[in-house]
Amino acid sequence: MITLYTGNFHGTVSQGLVRDIRVRWALEEADLAYQTSFVSRTEMASADYRHFQPFAKIPALAEGNVVLFESAAILLYLGEKSEALMPNDRGGKARTTAWVLAGAATVEPAIEHLCHIDLFPSHPEAEQIMRPDAERVVRTRLEAVADALADKPYLQGQFSVADIVMRSAFSLLRHTDIIAGYPTLAAYMRRCEARPAYQRALADHNAAYTAAA
Amino acid sequence: MITLYTGNFHGTVSQGLVRDIRVRWALEEADLAYQTSFVSRTEMASADYRHFQPFAKIPALAEGNVVLFESAAILLYLGEKSEALMPNDRGGKARTTAWVLAGAATVEPAIEHLCHIDLFPSHPEAEQIMRPDAERVVRTRLEAVADALADKPYLQGQFSVADIVMRSAFSLLRHTDIIAGYPTLAAYMRRCEARPAYQRALADHNAAYTAAA
Repeated sequence: MITLYTGNFHGTVSQGLVRDIRVRWALEEADLAYQTSFVSRTEMASADYRHFQPFAKIPALAEGNVVLFESAAILLYLGEKSEALMPNDRGGKARTTAWVLAGAATVEPAIEHLCHIDLFPSHPEAEQIMRPDAERVVRTRLEAVADALADKPYLQGQFSVADIVMRSAFSLLRHTDIIAGYPTLAAYMRRCEARPAYQRALADHNAAYTAAA
Repeated sequence: MITLYTGNFHGTVSQGLVRDIRVRWALEEADLAYQTSFVSRTEMASADYRHFQPFAKIPALAEGNVVLFESAAILLYLGEKSEALMPNDRGGKARTTAWVLAGAATVEPAIEHLCHIDLFPSHPEAEQIMRPDAERVVRTRLEAVADALADKPYLQGQFSVADIVMRSAFSLLRHTDIIAGYPTLAAYMRRCEARPAYQRALADHNAAYTAAA
């Protein structure tokens, strides 16, 4: 049985963006059963939890003796289980991995930097001075993804975990109108979010917060 | 035949840190033959190159009809070829992937932010105000890695591509004394850098710059 470790203690700024959604979405796409274990802020910092999530974050995932962390790594792990998530030929798998990394290590950090400036500034005046540069980096990355996407419905034609990572990174920009300015990306977001598996994942994510409220 | 696409046009601030070293290092660890193709700044921005490296960066890798980008994704691809790079059991492979992602998506972006402030500031005064926060985030990440490493020689006991990513992320801090303040991490860096495969990779990287000079 797969266990997803997640939290339901985030405020409204973060609800709907927390990375458990990515894992839930993949599990729904592949029709894999799972149970959820909610970790409190206190438990998250405990030595026991940090034994398998060293950075004291969520999500983490366990299946038998496999325990792992980093949402993108969890998606690659689940990708091995189902062609609904990742092609099973060597080239398709390699390319999916490249796009997962592009989302997690190239696109998302740039977006997170902008989000930090906009939503959680510790030195608002100084951060505002750097905002145009931060937005410029985000736009450069977005334009590269839009060019690569071109007229394909998904990054590799067929849906894969790379789209889960990329759509979720883009969603962190929901407090801005940046994505709306790129018709290719706006349509891609709508296409991803219309998928029944995403809808179920989001509903389950939100239900956990409602239950905790 | 494996072809590594890289560049040799970087200045001394970046030489020795460019991400081709990670790929060269993995290829040397696994004793895989490869050829190198140098891409100029102009070629890097061309539509042809961006067809397989959408973000116009190096490195990229081609093997037969497999073309891929993102150094960490390339390492995961090479990891499938050799137990010198990645365990081949399901759990060990999943855990390696988690640590590769931790290095590329959690540790490195925090370090890169600090490097940007220190080495390439566009608004030095504003960036200096944010420097203490940026350094605090880096230290939080480093402490998590040091705790996880504990008395193991490598992140998973045995050397893997995760160590290539992590050591290389740490190396971006070479202009500071931050790593030296964590004896566990300083010893880990020395251990990684003493490996003959790393030494060969670095020598080949440097030779390419000498040849271009």
